[in-house]
Amino acid sequence: MPVSYNDIVGQYTGRLANLSDSIFGVAMTLLILEIRLPADYIETERQLWNALLALGPRFLVYFMSFLTLGLFWNAQQVQLSRFARGDRHLTWIHIAFIATVAVTPYSTALLENFIHLRIALAVFWLNLLMLGLMLYASWRYASVKGLLRDDVSLETKSAIERRIVLAQALYAAGFACCVISTRLSIVAIALVQFALALAPTIWWFKRRTLFGHRNHHRSC
Amino acid sequence: MPVSYNDIVGQYTGRLANLSDSIFGVAMTLLILEIRLPADYIETERQLWNALLALGPRFLVYFMSFLTLGLFWNAQQVQLSRFARGDRHLTWIHIAFIATVAVTPYSTALLENFIHLRIALAVFWLNLLMLGLMLYASWRYASVKGLLRDDVSLETKSAIERRIVLAQALYAAGFACCVISTRLSIVAIALVQFALALAPTIWWFKRRTLFGHRNHHRSC
Amino acid sequence: MPVSYNDIVGQYTGRLANLSDSIFGVAMTLLILEIRLPADYIETERQLWNALLALGPRFLVYFMSFLTLGLFWNAQQVQLSRFARGDRHLTWIHIAFIATVAVTPYSTALLENFIHLRIALAVFWLNLLMLGLMLYASWRYASVKGLLRDDVSLETKSAIERRIVLAQALYAAGFACCVISTRLSIVAIALVQFALALAPTIWWFKRRTLFGHRNHHRSC
Amino acid sequence: MPVSYNDIVGQYTGRLANLSDSIFGVAMTLLILEIRLPADYIETERQLWNALLALGPRFLVYFMSFLTLGLFWNAQQVQLSRFARGDRHLTWIHIAFIATVAVTPYSTALLENFIHLRIALAVFWLNLLMLGLMLYASWRYASVKGLLRDDVSLETKSAIERRIVLAQALYAAGFACCVISTRLSIVAIALVQFALALAPTIWWFKRRTLFGHRNHHRSC
Repeated sequence: MPVSYNDIVGQYTGRLANLSDSIFGVAMTLLILEIRLPADYIETERQLWNALLALGPRFLVYFMSFLTLGLFWNAQQVQLSRFARGDRHLTWIHIAFIATVAVTPYSTALLENFIHLRIALAVFWLNLLMLGLMLYASWRYASVKGLLRDDVSLETKSAIERRIVLAQALYAAGFACCVISTRLSIVAIALVQFALALAPTIWWFKRRTLFGHRNHHRSC
Repeated sequence: MPVSYNDIVGQYTGRLANLSDSIFGVAMTLLILEIRLPADYIETERQLWNALLALGPRFLVYFMSFLTLGLFWNAQQVQLSRFARGDRHLTWIHIAFIATVAVTPYSTALLENFIHLRIALAVFWLNLLMLGLMLYASWRYASVKGLLRDDVSLETKSAIERRIVLAQALYAAGFACCVISTRLSIVAIALVQFALALAPTIWWFKRRTLFGHRNHHRSC
Repeated sequence: MPVSYNDIVGQYTGRLANLSDSIFGVAMTLLILEIRLPADYIETERQLWNALLALGPRFLVYFMSFLTLGLFWNAQQVQLSRFARGDRHLTWIHIAFIATVAVTPYSTALLENFIHLRIALAVFWLNLLMLGLMLYASWRYASVKGLLRDDVSLETKSAIERRIVLAQALYAAGFACCVISTRLSIVAIALVQFALALAPTIWWFKRRTLFGHRNHHRSC
Repeated sequence: MPVSYNDIVGQYTGRLANLSDSIFGVAMTLLILEIRLPADYIETERQLWNALLALGPRFLVYFMSFLTLGLFWNAQQVQLSRFARGDRHLTWIHIAFIATVAVTPYSTALLENFIHLRIALAVFWLNLLMLGLMLYASWRYASVKGLLRDDVSLETKSAIERRIVLAQALYAAGFACCVISTRLSIVAIALVQFALALAPTIWWFKRRTLFGHRNHHRSC
C-alpha cells in the first residue's frame, strides 16, 4: 500500500525539518540576547549613544553569526528537499548538525565577550567547521545509500559537495587571518558569508546545473 | 514530472514559513521576559500593587511591541500565501526580515529601559522601518520576477504596496511626535498599530479589491 | 479555481496553528526556568535535598501552569480543527489568545515569587480568564460568521461553549478560595485542571455529542 | 464524508508533532545556556583556555543530555508515525511526555551545578525514567485502543516495547554506578545513549522486523 509508505516517510523528513526550524528559530533569536543591554545607570542621550557605539563589535559578531545560521539553514534546506527518504543514520547526522546549530549562540557569546582572544575565535571557527562536516557527511551518506530523489543529477550532487568544500576553505582562510588580528578574521569571515549569501548563484554551480534539471536550480 | 517540482517548491516556502513562525513565536514570548519581575524584598499586597503599577509603562511598550509582531506576522503571511514559488534572493530577503524580527525583543527592551530617551525610540522606529522595507522589497521582487500566483490581481499587487507605505508613513508620523515627548510617540505608534489591526479592512484596500478576486480579500 | 482558494486558506490556518505551537512550546519550556536552581554554595546531599524541598511550592505552581497551557492548547486545537476557513478578525482574536499564552510564564513566575500574596494570584487568574474569553470570542465569532466546517453539529457548537463557561466557573470558584488562603486557591485550581484534563470526557459533553458526528467526538 | 475526517485527524496528530518539535527545539537550545560563559575578568588566552577546560564536566553533561533528547525525539517520532489517529487520552500522555522533555534543561542544569551529589543525578535519572514510562504508556495505550495503523505488525509492536524496557534497564544500571561515583554514572549513561544512537539497528529489533514490513524498518 504505497500511500501509507509515503505518509510515513513524509512525516519523517517533515518532522526533521520541523525540529530543525524550531532549533534554528530559537538559536537565531537567542543570538541577540547575548548583546547585553546598556547599563541601567545611563541617563542622557549622549551616554546611551556612546553605550550603543561601544556595543558595535558585538553587533558585528551578531551579524556574522546570524548570516552563518541563515546560510546553513539554506544549505540544510537544499539537502532535505532532495531526499526521497531518510533512515536512522541520516537522522542522527542531522541531529548532530542541529546540536552544532544549538551551540552557535554559545560560541557567538564567547566570541562577543572575548573578541580579542584567538581561542574564542577558534571555538567559533570549529563550530563553523562542524556545521560543514555534518552537512558534507549528510550529503555523502545520502548519495551512497541512494536516499536522494531520482531527479537529482550527478552535476547537482557534486556541485553541492563542492559548495560545502569551497565555503569551508574560505572560512579557514578567514580564520587564518587571526595571525594578524582576531577582528580582521571576524570581518573576513563576515565578508565571506555576505558574498556566499548575496552571490546571485555561485558561478560554476550555475553553469553546471543550468542545463540539468531546472527545478534544482530554482529551489536553492 | 510536475509532482516532484511542486513538492520541492512546496517544502521550500513551507520551511520558510516554519522558520518564520518559530522566530516570531520565540520573539513574541521573549518580549514578556524583558518586563522585569518585581523585586524579591516585596512583602505586602500594597507593595506588590505599587511595584506592578510602576511597571505600567513597560507593559505599554510590551503591548505595542506585541502588536507590531502580530501585524508583521500577518503582513508576511499575506505575502507568503501569494507566492507561487520562491528563489534564493527571495529567501534572503525573508531571512533579513526575520533577522529584524529577532532584533525586536532587544529594541523593545532598550525602549523599556530608556523610555525617556529619543535614541531608544529611534532604534525601535528603525526596527519598524526595516521590517517595512524588507516586506516592500519582498513584494516588489516577487512581482517583478513573476514569483506570484497567477490569481493575484494587479489591484491586489498595488494595494499591498500601498498598505506597507501607509503603515510606514503613520509610524514615521508617530515617531515624529518624540519632538514633544517619547511617551506621546509610544502612545501614538501603539494607536496606529491598534487601528491597523482592528480596522475591519483598510477602506481603500477593500474598495479596490472587493470586485477583484474574493479569495484575496478573505484571507488577509 | 477552487484549488487555489483552498490552498490559500489552508496555508492560512496552518500558519496560525504553527505560530501557536511555537509560542506554546516556548512558553511551556520557559515555565521551568522560573523555578530557580538551588544556590551555588550547597555542598552536601542533605543541603541539596532541603533546597529542593523548599522549592516544593514552586513545583506545584509549575505543575498547575503547565496543565493550564496543556488544557488551552487542546481547547484551541479543538477549535482550529473545526474551522473551514479564517478571516482577519479571527486571526486577531487568536493573536490576542497567544499573546495571553505568552504572558503565562510571567504571571506564573509572579505567583511563584509571591505565593502568599492575593494580587499575584489575581494576576494569574486574570490570565486564565483572558485565555477563556479569547477562546469564547473565537468560537462565537466563527459560529456567527459561518467559518465553521459544515459537519460541526449544533450540539457540538453549544457543547464547546458550555465547556469554556464551565471551566471558567470552576477557575473563579478556585480563585475565590483565596479569601481563606492563596495556597488553597492554587491547590483548588490545580485540582480543577487535573480533573478537566483527566476526565475521560466531560459527562454531558459526551452524552450530547455522542449521537452527533462521531468524528468530533474522537478528535477532542 | 471521509475526507473531512482524515483532515481533522491529520491536523490533530500534526499539531501534536508540531508542539513536540517546538518544545524539543527550545529545550535542546536552552541546554547550552546552562553551561555558563567564562567570567568577564579573563584577559589572556591561557586564562580562557583554563576556564574552558574547567567547564569540561559541564560539556560532558550537556552532551549526555542532548543525546537523551535526540533519542527520545526519535522514539516519539517512531510512535507518532505509526498512529492512525489519536484521542484525548493519548494527547494527555504525550503532553505529560513533553512536560518531562521541558523539565530536562532544569535537571541537566542541576546535574551540571551539583555533579558530585547523588541527589542531582537521581533527579536526572528520574527524568529519564519518566520519559520512558510516558512513551511506554503511549505505545501500550495506542495498541490496546486500536489507534495504530493497520500495517503495524505484532513484531513491531513488541519490538518497540522491548526497546523501551531495554533502554530503561541500561539507564538504571548506569545510575546504579553512582554507588561508586556520580561521574562514573554520567559516563556510563552517556555511553549507553551513544550506543543506542549509533547502533546501526538494535540487533533483535532488526531480526524480528526485517521480514515483516520493510517500511517500518526503514523509517526508524
